[in-house]
Amino acid sequence: MTDQAATSSATANIGVVGLAVMGSNLARNLASREGNTVAIFNRSAEKTEHLVAEHPEAGFVATFSYEEFAASLTAPRTAIIMVKAGAGTDAVIDELLRVFEPGDIIVDGGNALFTDTIRREKAVRETGINFVGMGVSGGEEGALLGPSLMPGGSDESWITLGPILKTIAAVAEGEPCVTHIGHDGAGHFVKMVHNGIEYADMQVIAEAYDLIRHATGYSPAQIADVFAEWNRGELESYLIEITAEVLRQVDSDTGLPLVDVVLDQAGAKGTGGWTAQTAIDLGVPASGIAEAVFARSLSSHPEQRATAGILPGPDADAESSFADDPAAFIEKVRRALYASKIVAYSQGFDIIRAGAAHYGWNIDLGNVAAIWRGGCIIRARFLNRITEAYADTADLPVLMTAPFFVDALATAQDAWRDVVAHAAATGLPAPVFSSSLAYYDGLRARRLPAALIQGQRDFFGAHTYKRVDRDGTFHTLWSGDRSEVEAVDTH
Amino acid sequence: MTDQAATSSATANIGVVGLAVMGSNLARNLASREGNTVAIFNRSAEKTEHLVAEHPEAGFVATFSYEEFAASLTAPRTAIIMVKAGAGTDAVIDELLRVFEPGDIIVDGGNALFTDTIRREKAVRETGINFVGMGVSGGEEGALLGPSLMPGGSDESWITLGPILKTIAAVAEGEPCVTHIGHDGAGHFVKMVHNGIEYADMQVIAEAYDLIRHATGYSPAQIADVFAEWNRGELESYLIEITAEVLRQVDSDTGLPLVDVVLDQAGAKGTGGWTAQTAIDLGVPASGIAEAVFARSLSSHPEQRATAGILPGPDADAESSFADDPAAFIEKVRRALYASKIVAYSQGFDIIRAGAAHYGWNIDLGNVAAIWRGGCIIRARFLNRITEAYADTADLPVLMTAPFFVDALATAQDAWRDVVAHAAATGLPAPVFSSSLAYYDGLRARRLPAALIQGQRDFFGAHTYKRVDRDGTFHTLWSGDRSEVEAVDTH
Repeated sequence: MTDQAATSSATANIGVVGLAVMGSNLARNLASREGNTVAIFNRSAEKTEHLVAEHPEAGFVATFSYEEFAASLTAPRTAIIMVKAGAGTDAVIDELLRVFEPGDIIVDGGNALFTDTIRREKAVRETGINFVGMGVSGGEEGALLGPSLMPGGSDESWITLGPILKTIAAVAEGEPCVTHIGHDGAGHFVKMVHNGIEYADMQVIAEAYDLIRHATGYSPAQIADVFAEWNRGELESYLIEITAEVLRQVDSDTGLPLVDVVLDQAGAKGTGGWTAQTAIDLGVPASGIAEAVFARSLSSHPEQRATAGILPGPDADAESSFADDPAAFIEKVRRALYASKIVAYSQGFDIIRAGAAHYGWNIDLGNVAAIWRGGCIIRARFLNRITEAYADTADLPVLMTAPFFVDALATAQDAWRDVVAHAAATGLPAPVFSSSLAYYDGLRARRLPAALIQGQRDFFGAHTYKRVDRDGTFHTLWSGDRSEVEAVDTH
Repeated sequence: MTDQAATSSATANIGVVGLAVMGSNLARNLASREGNTVAIFNRSAEKTEHLVAEHPEAGFVATFSYEEFAASLTAPRTAIIMVKAGAGTDAVIDELLRVFEPGDIIVDGGNALFTDTIRREKAVRETGINFVGMGVSGGEEGALLGPSLMPGGSDESWITLGPILKTIAAVAEGEPCVTHIGHDGAGHFVKMVHNGIEYADMQVIAEAYDLIRHATGYSPAQIADVFAEWNRGELESYLIEITAEVLRQVDSDTGLPLVDVVLDQAGAKGTGGWTAQTAIDLGVPASGIAEAVFARSLSSHPEQRATAGILPGPDADAESSFADDPAAFIEKVRRALYASKIVAYSQGFDIIRAGAAHYGWNIDLGNVAAIWRGGCIIRARFLNRITEAYADTADLPVLMTAPFFVDALATAQDAWRDVVAHAAATGLPAPVFSSSLAYYDGLRARRLPAALIQGQRDFFGAHTYKRVDRDGTFHTLWSGDRSEVEAVDTH
């Protein structure tokens, strides 16, 4: 049989293609775990040789052609591609398809757009080979020490892949941070939403810092203490922890706080924007994530910000309304941050729920929260509450309506309102704080002025409307006698 | 010559393919203008026959095959396709390519996504035939009586098309509402942004209505009077005018205001979402448009809104803080609406500017504002101010920094802040009012907390940062001795 012939010299149970820093670290992570032998391949041989030389302890099986790489793997061959997302991924897949056989497994661990993953999975599946798009979160350090892993793909591939991935994933409260998310593009979809939530989470932290600094006059080092303190409470999370570290950092050149010498223009790598764009496609209001993306793009237009200095702000004396009681203000901001964060996660899980329904994925939302507890950037104690919420009610229509979050929001909402009002009055931008509150109040509203919008649309475009008191679709003859007619619903 | 042979029996200078209501009305509009003879064609002959029978005064040249349609047109043959955007458009183009000749002009007057138009223009151009994607605004009535027209495509096509389009376009202050927007997809791009602005404009009106109703207890009919009054001032516009009409309408069945019997779930047709998605691709903060899109999608999830009733709101007595002086509150809301509207237009023109730069279009932003003054849904006196702003400074980086708008915002901003604070305090959703204010204050800010975000990104992902005081790209060794190193900028 060709399978036996091909694998007669095979010794590796897993392979990695692409040995830049993420790939190298993931390969080292794999090699360090009991039971794994790792074949490695890179387009340029230097990187392969370098990695083998630097890490003899890993026992890598170095290979220098796709044929050799395939021959080194036991069946079913399992390879993780770690190259920059894009055309390079397709090129590597084509090479692997040439040397792999039905039943083998190709894993893309890059940051692919989930629709690309759906396309690739469909094409690869026709060859009988399994294709798994896998989200890998945690950056370089996570790849080496334990990432949060979000594999999609077939159930068949999970049988082989699951046990291997469980050896390398981060561990949170005794459980490995990996689960089979769902078929085809589900893994990359969930990773994308993870990143979108990360954008919002970072932005609410930034808004909290900015508001505290302006309202209290605290130095970055003092605010570092505030964040360190917050990290001992319900906000405990990696991002809060590192915020304290960043704010405490002093620039050795100038003696100034580092945050004051860093250029205030935030970059983006696309996944936050993808999340907002996907939410729009799915009809999910993901305003917190979108506002966080826009806050970064606003910051990155110095030519616009330079001219906008002439725009008038509020009277200067509005600045100091909380200066006499900084502790009280800081507690209000903490609550506003917590409430805004709950909204961002609620919106994020809403995107996943809608995406699962649209693409036919069976995603366990509680498990998604559970595997984000370790390894990834948004890891937080808070995620346990999300897992519990979905364990109680798997089909919760809105995450923040779970009892725990309702209680949390009840405690936070007055302070949240005060902080948003304060930001508006004092001219400080708090786009995610205020957008999240508007979303919260929109969802709560018994009636929305959307009814007026439907009336406008019917007036200018005969778009028709529905009524609250009976079924059917209606149109008012606005240019005629203004009577109402029942319409055939063609919209 | 084939050209002469093919056109020997030709009598029509313009043709329309697709005779649903938009196509029929545009054909009738064309036929009613001096100098035009209009050939018509529809896939099903009944519609063609019906239109000819109903409108003998139009002198239509009815045709029943693409060959006959082509033969009826004088050279260069010019046909406007008015079919539902999508695969149908491609099918009609293929048929026209079969019967048209180099130099002829195919116009797509549907609501195509501009990237489809770019693709189609490129493919059609290779045959020597001109392809023009044209935005048509104003709905059914506009198509019949005078739309705002936004043609893209080649300069060559504009020579023939311009004079014809000028006969049928709306007229505003003596000028036809049509201009050659730019090459290939520029016309559909600008039409898309028009629709995005329309979403924001409608939403700020809806927020104003909702806030006034809750704060003052005014009836819809009383608020209709408010809008009618506003329509005599700086807010004068079609949307304000029809809002008064809609709010005044009484449902004959129930005797209630119509706005109270219309289901408060606003639909969407895609172009608002496209605008926000495109803005994200271009790195333009279009928060007002995105929030307007999200407000509609929020309204359209009754299953979520039903459960969200348990979310706690502010104390009931917060509701009445302005009830003792309704006129003062209404004036504040008017100013907030005006300021939010300026932001929406500023962001919209920012998208057009960025799109023009990205796609290589030479778009005169002042002309865009000028052709929106008539025919289209967002027609408004206000657009003259935009035209003037770009006439003064063609490369204005932010529209709202033009002197007229700076003055307007200076007058409005205190009230705007009060209204956003009031909405937050009383639990009323005002997502575009508050988002626009946050954008305004973000653009004004001397320093943004984006610096902290850059610090976080450098901490967890070695994303590097730039400094305010010297060139280069830097990284702090967060896991090491926390010294700063100069980095090779690979991000």
